[in-house]
Amino acid sequence: MIDILPTIQMVRRAGMIDLTWGHPATELLPVEEISRAAAAMLDRAGIEALTYGADQGAGPLLDWLRTRIARTEGRAPAAGEIVITAGNSDALEQICALWAHPGDVVLVESPTYHLAVRIMRDHPLELAPVVADEFGLRIDALEAAIASLRRAGRRPRMLYLVPTFHNPTGVSLSPERRAVLVELAAAEDLLIVEDDVYRELTYDGPAPPSLWSMAPPGVVARMGSFAKVLAPGLRLGWLTGGAALVGRLVSSGLRDSGGGTSHFAAMVVAELCASGRFEEHVARLRVAYRARRDALLSALAIHLPPGCRVSMPAGGYFVWVTLPAGLDAAELLPRAEATGVSFLPGARFHLEGGRGTNALRLAFSLHTPEELAEAAQKLGEVIGEN
Amino acid sequence: MIDILPTIQMVRRAGMIDLTWGHPATELLPVEEISRAAAAMLDRAGIEALTYGADQGAGPLLDWLRTRIARTEGRAPAAGEIVITAGNSDALEQICALWAHPGDVVLVESPTYHLAVRIMRDHPLELAPVVADEFGLRIDALEAAIASLRRAGRRPRMLYLVPTFHNPTGVSLSPERRAVLVELAAAEDLLIVEDDVYRELTYDGPAPPSLWSMAPPGVVARMGSFAKVLAPGLRLGWLTGGAALVGRLVSSGLRDSGGGTSHFAAMVVAELCASGRFEEHVARLRVAYRARRDALLSALAIHLPPGCRVSMPAGGYFVWVTLPAGLDAAELLPRAEATGVSFLPGARFHLEGGRGTNALRLAFSLHTPEELAEAAQKLGEVIGEN
Repeated sequence: MIDILPTIQMVRRAGMIDLTWGHPATELLPVEEISRAAAAMLDRAGIEALTYGADQGAGPLLDWLRTRIARTEGRAPAAGEIVITAGNSDALEQICALWAHPGDVVLVESPTYHLAVRIMRDHPLELAPVVADEFGLRIDALEAAIASLRRAGRRPRMLYLVPTFHNPTGVSLSPERRAVLVELAAAEDLLIVEDDVYRELTYDGPAPPSLWSMAPPGVVARMGSFAKVLAPGLRLGWLTGGAALVGRLVSSGLRDSGGGTSHFAAMVVAELCASGRFEEHVARLRVAYRARRDALLSALAIHLPPGCRVSMPAGGYFVWVTLPAGLDAAELLPRAEATGVSFLPGARFHLEGGRGTNALRLAFSLHTPEELAEAAQKLGEVIGEN
Repeated sequence: MIDILPTIQMVRRAGMIDLTWGHPATELLPVEEISRAAAAMLDRAGIEALTYGADQGAGPLLDWLRTRIARTEGRAPAAGEIVITAGNSDALEQICALWAHPGDVVLVESPTYHLAVRIMRDHPLELAPVVADEFGLRIDALEAAIASLRRAGRRPRMLYLVPTFHNPTGVSLSPERRAVLVELAAAEDLLIVEDDVYRELTYDGPAPPSLWSMAPPGVVARMGSFAKVLAPGLRLGWLTGGAALVGRLVSSGLRDSGGGTSHFAAMVVAELCASGRFEEHVARLRVAYRARRDALLSALAIHLPPGCRVSMPAGGYFVWVTLPAGLDAAELLPRAEATGVSFLPGARFHLEGGRGTNALRLAFSLHTPEELAEAAQKLGEVIGEN
């Protein structure tokens, strides 16, 4: 009588090496660790995990995060500068709903994470692109965008970007530009919304410092998440930012009524983190994803025809391929899929029509090194046929 | 170095029988059942619970809900008429963000759940009260409110109410008014947002039919939750409503990016429900909360001075006391607290200043029958001193 509705978001396509999904490798999801943590936590603190959680989020997780962030980033968020979220999508949704106002202008790095664009447009906010290059967001383009808005009598409400291990390009904002960016934002009273979801997945040494850790208080709202380092199904993340913004989120009607976000999941993860297994798990992920990145990059170097450019991500999930001039990734896609490889065309990640048409995003997180090598070979053949 | 931030929302006050919290009794939270369900589910389907969940919500829980709702309400939501939420606060937040538009007028039963008001004002929506009496929302007042808006060239976007075991009054909308209300809403193209969080906590026979089950498709968005029947910390509920509204929530940028809401918690609860333990647990809650309600009502009957009126809730968490004319509940509160009893003054639940000042809400869910009897006696003494 009842249809069986799907359990998970991803749709597997038989015979396809599908490089469209920015999802964690299923075999790297810490099922055992989560199961042990849930059992231990419920045994010890079950009632506290099942009743309404504190509006700011579960205290044990906030305390662990504050200590860890102090250690890894050299700056400890004050008690009022951090809040638990249901992941970065939820954090962005909350900022759009409670901090921005409908019709506000948001500057958005371009290319950018295409689904963040959908969240911001839902509110609705007006988005204005700021172009990025192989060193990340271009500061001159940012200055020009602010100046252009000023001439129209407007001020941008915030700037959304993924400065570290970027989605879709894999690029990280250069240290020089980071320093200039936070200074400029402070001078312009511009809120930087830093999507920092890939920070822990660093493969060639330490990740660059977060913009949040470099900026004066209140300039940056940095969104961090357990989606890529533990499990996205937990719907769990956090935000470090100025006390005014954090206070606005914590004092919302939503939290006053429902208590802290994802409270049960937060209590499970607090247990896992306190046990020390978090660092082990992250180390394991770095090894596994580094091997995938390396497999993809080396196969692309062998198989892509001349004229292609490939980004060299030091972390995260994504490689960005720029095709020889005149080639259109969207036109290439059906032919690639006919050979058993799929990707997302680059235009999907731009606000402006006509940009990114000769680029494509390859997500390497979900596939084995062997599959990635095979995908690169097939992709090379399809591109070479032109 | 680090402050210890609180874990839970509730703040216990020593020596106080605190009837302000509409929270479940901690000793009735199903810690054992949740623990068993989490272990069994992770063992069997761990990867599916930890990766991104389907945008609509976890299929196994949706399937179980559809079957159960068909059985208990005589109407099965179609596959596209139900969506998993993070509880009713989240469902209302999503309706306000994605279905209503800033500045829309929302009609709100008065008195009403005071924190729902905060959620709606966050967006911001303009709220207009519609008075309720001992049979629930007054239909003549609703017609008058619609007519008054029409004269101003406006139409209400929706009507928010708690028709069953109301917060704060405990009253249920009468069967006659239910029938007239859904007919009127259909004729006026008015969306009814039915907060149905207390439905399962029915103490004197079956709960009244939901407005959703009585109305043509699309007229009612009914918000249901596991907060009061399992555990609020799970942040888990569902919504049944028209395919257009449900489709709007499911296709949001938030879900496109983050997948289904509270996915891990939903998978745990689906396991618990499939095991048959849900019905057992609800039956246990009904017995326990019925005893609390009865203890409070009979003690109030003995101890309150003449001139007080007490609502007779057939379910839910709340009793509403109307004081003799001229008494102000807010003025009474410090004296009650001095004797070790607390409550929420009735004005808190009204949009309109000056209404409800001689009423108060008593939440009986959190306390033992003995504590409730003691509270009623103390309250009677304090009121009698006037």
